Amino acid sequence: MNGTGRFITLEGAEGAGKSTSLAFVHRFLGARGIDALVTREPGGTPLAEEIRTVLLAPRDERVDALAETLLIFAARAQHFATVIEPALQSGRWVLCDRFTDSTFAYQGGGRGVPTALLEALAAQVHHDRWPHLTLYLDAPTDVALERIRGREHDRFERQPEEFFERARAVFRQRAQEHERIVQIDAGQGHGGVRRDIERALERFLAAP
Amino acid sequence: MNGTGRFITLEGAEGAGKSTSLAFVHRFLGARGIDALVTREPGGTPLAEEIRTVLLAPRDERVDALAETLLIFAARAQHFATVIEPALQSGRWVLCDRFTDSTFAYQGGGRGVPTALLEALAAQVHHDRWPHLTLYLDAPTDVALERIRGREHDRFERQPEEFFERARAVFRQRAQEHERIVQIDAGQGHGGVRRDIERALERFLAAP
Repeated sequence: MNGTGRFITLEGAEGAGKSTSLAFVHRFLGARGIDALVTREPGGTPLAEEIRTVLLAPRDERVDALAETLLIFAARAQHFATVIEPALQSGRWVLCDRFTDSTFAYQGGGRGVPTALLEALAAQVHHDRWPHLTLYLDAPTDVALERIRGREHDRFERQPEEFFERARAVFRQRAQEHERIVQIDAGQGHGGVRRDIERALERFLAAP
Repeated sequence: MNGTGRFITLEGAEGAGKSTSLAFVHRFLGARGIDALVTREPGGTPLAEEIRTVLLAPRDERVDALAETLLIFAARAQHFATVIEPALQSGRWVLCDRFTDSTFAYQGGGRGVPTALLEALAAQVHHDRWPHLTLYLDAPTDVALERIRGREHDRFERQPEEFFERARAVFRQRAQEHERIVQIDAGQGHGGVRRDIERALERFLAAP
C-alpha cells in the first residue's frame, strides 16, 4: 500500500443488505486500526445531499434520463472534489455506499443512457480514480424487492421489476469485467455474506 | 419561416434590464399574433426550478465548478426535453430568459470551466438546437452591479466584480462570433434599448 488512502465501495440493490455489510466492513477495518471515512452517494456533502433529495423525491413530472444522470454526476463532482479526493490524499480510507458502478447499472442499464456518455462523465468527474475495491452484493431481484416491501419507496424503488433486472445484469457484467469488483452472493444467509466479505477484505489487505 | 416555432433567448447580466426587455419582446410578438411561451433558465419545470433553488442558495460550502456546471445542464436537460423542444415541435415560439450562452459566460468565463466540455454538454443536452435569435443586453459591469445594489443577492450575485467582467467578455465575444446573437447597448436609456430590440425583432421577422 502506498501513502494514500484506499477507496472501497459497496454496491447492489436496495434490499441486498448493503447497510449491514457497510457497518460490518467499517468495524472490520476499525479492528485493524483503519478509521475509514463512511459516506454515501448520491450525497456526502450538504449540497450533494440536497441533490439526493431532489433525485429521490417521487414526482408526477416525467424525469428525463439525461437530466437524472447529470444530477447524479453533479452530486458526485461535489462529493468527489470536496470530500473523497481530499480524504484519500490525506491518507484516509474512504468507505462509500454506492458510486459510479450504480450509475452504469441504473442509468445505463435501467434507463438506457449510453455507456460512452457515462464513461465520459466519469472521466470528467473522478478522472482515473476508481475504487480500489468494490463489494457487489448480488441478490435475485425478487428477493431484494421482497425485502424492501412495506417501507415507503423513493422514486427509484417505484420502478418496475424489469428496471432492476436490467440494472442487476449490468452489475453482474461489470463484476466479471473489473477485477476490483468482488461479487458476493447476497441471497445466502447473513453468516455466509459476512464470511465472504471477510475473505475479500483479507485478500485485499494482503495484496501488495 | 418553416412550420416549427422559433426559439428566442435573452442574455446579459442581472441589472442589465432583462426582465423589462423580456416583457417587451413578449408584447411585441403578441401584437403580431405570436403567443410565445415565456420561460427561464435555470428552471422552467418543477424539477428544474428545484435545481435552480439549489444552485442559487448562498452557502458556506465551496461549490465545485464542475458540480455547478452539471447541475445547470441537468436543469437544462429537463427543461429542454420536456418543455422547450415539445413547444417548438408543436409550432409554438419560445422566449427564454437565459440559456447556454449564460453557461459559457458564467461557468466558462467566470469559473474557468473548459469551453470544450461546455460544447460537449450542450451537444448532449440540446443537440443541434440553438436559439434562432439571442438578444444580448450589454452593460458595463459597474452599471449593472449598481442596479442590483440593495436587493438580496443570490450565490452568483455575491461573486466579485472580476467574475462578472470575465463573463461579460465571453458574452461580447460570442456576440461577435455568432450571427444569431444581437448585442444591445443596455447602458443607454430605456427608450434606446427598446428601439434597438424592436429593430432586431423586425429584422428577424422579415428574414426568410
